[in-house]
Amino acid sequence: MLKLFEYNWQVRKDWFDWCDQVLEEELLKKRTGGLGSILYTLYHIVYVEYGWISLLQGKEPKTLPSPEDASVQTLRDCSARCHAEIAPFIYAWNSSMEDNRLSDQNEDTGEWESYKYGEIIRHVIAHEIHHIGQLSIWSREIGKPPVTANLIRRGLFD
Amino acid sequence: MLKLFEYNWQVRKDWFDWCDQVLEEELLKKRTGGLGSILYTLYHIVYVEYGWISLLQGKEPKTLPSPEDASVQTLRDCSARCHAEIAPFIYAWNSSMEDNRLSDQNEDTGEWESYKYGEIIRHVIAHEIHHIGQLSIWSREIGKPPVTANLIRRGLFD
Repeated sequence: MLKLFEYNWQVRKDWFDWCDQVLEEELLKKRTGGLGSILYTLYHIVYVEYGWISLLQGKEPKTLPSPEDASVQTLRDCSARCHAEIAPFIYAWNSSMEDNRLSDQNEDTGEWESYKYGEIIRHVIAHEIHHIGQLSIWSREIGKPPVTANLIRRGLFD
Repeated sequence: MLKLFEYNWQVRKDWFDWCDQVLEEELLKKRTGGLGSILYTLYHIVYVEYGWISLLQGKEPKTLPSPEDASVQTLRDCSARCHAEIAPFIYAWNSSMEDNRLSDQNEDTGEWESYKYGEIIRHVIAHEIHHIGQLSIWSREIGKPPVTANLIRRGLFD
């Protein structure tokens, strides 16, 4: 599981670097689908990982800077701070934690739901990869090649 | 690892069902980014999973029907046949297989490269989720809601 998180963190860093080469108006431009803009998608990726893993750590996630005020550098710093908070949990993950349970209130229905830790961990992994796929379409709309999504050849298994 | 494959297979099935509600010309329409069309993306997802896992099984992957001739039903059937071939390997996966090695010729450079099985397994998982994220953008372009990408609340951990 750790390798998939490391993949996501590496890809996310590559996308922040990609953003440095793109005009801010392109990063903030309203687009069709997903979360609606490149920068807001990156904000959402950071927040969702941080939010869920904080809950698994038994902590209430802090409020992050508003995405409206976020520059690439603000978001990169925010991502690094969130990473520092959650990484110890990911590195300590082991299969004995799979069936632990977290109760969480569904934002849409208001109902309390119970999830296995293993379900949430995988949800967080898939969530980031999915949204990065959306960024790859928008990058081509701008006329720039996207960050590679390949997991192989990233040195993660050396 | 298995749960992430089961997630991908369930989401893929949902996308085939989604395709049944969409005009074929929309499925084949050339779009910006990714593999360029909805149907070709689904073909690519099926083929890449089947191709890599066949190699891990020590088998040469068979040629699949050409994507140009593929209808949704052809692809759905093709996906089911590929699934039947590779699923036994996925269900038999265990951590002792992580460091086994596969040599494969890079299509771009022609060079032979060596990968750990664990690297390929995770590459295949991330590959499908990434391309599904692209479909979610195109579905909004068509004006239809995409299949949910949530891994939670799919009954995968009941």
